Amino acid sequence: KEIFEPSEHQHIRYNPLRDEWILVSAHRMKRPWKGQVEKPTEVNIARHDPTNPLCPGATRANGEVNSEYESTYVFDNDFPSLQPDAPDPGYRRCELLEAQFRPGIAIIILCKVMCFHPHSDITLPLMSIPEIRAVIDKWAELMVELGSKYQWVQIFENKGAMMGCSNPHPHCQVWASTFLPNEPRLADQTQRDHYNSHRVPMLLEYAKLESQKKERIVVENEDWLVVVPYWAMWPFQTLLLPRRHILRLQDLSDKERDSLASIMKRLLTKYDNLFEVSFPYSMGWHGAPTGQSILDDNSHWQLHAHYYPPLLRSATIRKFMVGYELLAQAQRDLTAEQAAERLRNLPEVHYKLKQN
Amino acid sequence: KEIFEPSEHQHIRYNPLRDEWILVSAHRMKRPWKGQVEKPTEVNIARHDPTNPLCPGATRANGEVNSEYESTYVFDNDFPSLQPDAPDPGYRRCELLEAQFRPGIAIIILCKVMCFHPHSDITLPLMSIPEIRAVIDKWAELMVELGSKYQWVQIFENKGAMMGCSNPHPHCQVWASTFLPNEPRLADQTQRDHYNSHRVPMLLEYAKLESQKKERIVVENEDWLVVVPYWAMWPFQTLLLPRRHILRLQDLSDKERDSLASIMKRLLTKYDNLFEVSFPYSMGWHGAPTGQSILDDNSHWQLHAHYYPPLLRSATIRKFMVGYELLAQAQRDLTAEQAAERLRNLPEVHYKLKQN
Ligand SMILES: O=P(O)(O)O[C@H]1O[C@H](CO)[C@@H](O)[C@H](O)[C@H]1O
Ligand SMILES: O=P(O)(O)O[C@H]1O[C@H](CO)[C@@H](O)[C@H](O)[C@H]1O
Repeated sequence: KEIFEPSEHQHIRYNPLRDEWILVSAHRMKRPWKGQVEKPTEVNIARHDPTNPLCPGATRANGEVNSEYESTYVFDNDFPSLQPDAPDPGYRRCELLEAQFRPGIAIIILCKVMCFHPHSDITLPLMSIPEIRAVIDKWAELMVELGSKYQWVQIFENKGAMMGCSNPHPHCQVWASTFLPNEPRLADQTQRDHYNSHRVPMLLEYAKLESQKKERIVVENEDWLVVVPYWAMWPFQTLLLPRRHILRLQDLSDKERDSLASIMKRLLTKYDNLFEVSFPYSMGWHGAPTGQSILDDNSHWQLHAHYYPPLLRSATIRKFMVGYELLAQAQRDLTAEQAAERLRNLPEVHYKLKQN
Repeated sequence: KEIFEPSEHQHIRYNPLRDEWILVSAHRMKRPWKGQVEKPTEVNIARHDPTNPLCPGATRANGEVNSEYESTYVFDNDFPSLQPDAPDPGYRRCELLEAQFRPGIAIIILCKVMCFHPHSDITLPLMSIPEIRAVIDKWAELMVELGSKYQWVQIFENKGAMMGCSNPHPHCQVWASTFLPNEPRLADQTQRDHYNSHRVPMLLEYAKLESQKKERIVVENEDWLVVVPYWAMWPFQTLLLPRRHILRLQDLSDKERDSLASIMKRLLTKYDNLFEVSFPYSMGWHGAPTGQSILDDNSHWQLHAHYYPPLLRSATIRKFMVGYELLAQAQRDLTAEQAAERLRNLPEVHYKLKQN
């Protein structure tokens, strides 16, 4: 009987954070691709464009003028997803046509934009460690500020036009809500269930397992490790995990913030080096809920960041999460171990710096 | 105090089929779009291309020659997602690094391709009712054939390069698995819970509600209705529902198959007319599980089809499901009622037929 080989044979893997399964069919990488090819990423971006609303000194859509900022810069989104002052829809009609969650809890979302750097032609992997550290400090500050009122503060970065990003200036967004959105609600539940039956946070246990096995590690240092999770869905998806039990970004020590800046730079440099392109992705932080949940027992939570990059074969060939994925189950074309090995073996010097 | 107006004010809506919430922020349609613009859909497709592996008489990658088919044509995918004969990985290691579901149940998936028509330059809305009826009959036949062995038979169509479709020839795929994938597993659970507490299938009750309210209906006839569901996530997402309780495609009467062909043609014509382009989407059928589940009580199930089209503002501007959506919660930029109204008001004569 043939011996099972994950890189050759179909199998499904369990994602304990989302309580769902992933199809792994690595032999599919052998098929030719005749489908859509993406536009190459823009390469000539001006360092400063006074008409770009994210640049220092620029005037935004609402007439406000940005400061001549020299590090990070935060302002309210001029086209927010949700207005903070909208009237409460209340409970509506029957169960199948239901708006709002809990009667009496207003749905409020605040949307902020955070610039990483005054220059438009730079990205995180090309920033210095102290510059990245400034981004981390600002994230932690926003978590404290918004977390005092909002139950969930979602920090996320959409990088690249392929990920719906409409402005090349390096930035992320922070959307804070008075309720737990779907994904954190699910992660709260699965982590809670695991904690109740094992008395150890799921992702702390997982980080220990991965640091023993080594086969899915991309980069690591004393405080952090980055793995292609066993259950990764996107081709080069990664999970950034602390080694000690940490609930939220604001709980990071001075040393942990520096080592986080360093590991982010190493990971993102490898990402860019993979196809020698500014690697598109969506990333975001998940940690223990805040606001009304801040005094609850959140021992089951472990701080982590997800990176979801869409590219599969080259700078212009992406993975499509379409028919079977939307209607049945996510499916990937290379194993997590293969993806981790490719990323691990890439140099930690950015390709743009080598060429110059 | 301001009065709540769904098309003006933020709110969240509940999706009872997935037990999750959707953010609705219709005022976002007002913001300008400076992001990625998609390539226009290919317009000049040859009717017959002997090198296209989906055409009648063409030779496929594995050396097999297609018949000179004149209606539908089904064959095994030459680059299947999963091999039907792969060895069983068995249960692996600890809970957090787990492959496979239930020990002893082999993970088998069969992947088939089904051509809708011998011509490459035609699509479902431009096919005649009897031609669409032939597609429906073949679907029902495959459901019976594959359903005798497989627990889940997923019929799905990826239409358009934007949806990862790599061949313009009109076709769908059928992936049959020995297990229930995530999405049907969830739909099975939510429908079962509803049935247990209400003694009526959720989607039968929902169809009745929508046919009274009318505000989300796109097209309807004696046997079927198409709505933009209250909880739609994609801008012009629709749900195709029968009016009577039907478990599976193969249970449709002769008359219901004809009226299905007719309503599909009307819906897809409206879709194409919306932006005067061959409208990209992923669609698929969900009905009661088969295989080992065929003798179970499946009264909670109701047959339905989901259409997930990505376009938002024009033929080249799509909705991106990225950062906030992937990490927190889906968010839409127009209400379901606004989308339904736009589709409802479109003509039922295809724009290509008007121009000629
Ligand atoms: O099998 P195809 O049509 O080549 O592939 C397409 O559909 C599959 C099933 O939804 C996806 O996994 C692929 O990413 C997509 O390109
Ligand atoms: O707010 P932005 O950056 O213009 O918009 C982008 O991110 C949002 C949050 O993930 C998405 O809803 C939009 O589809 C995307 O284009």
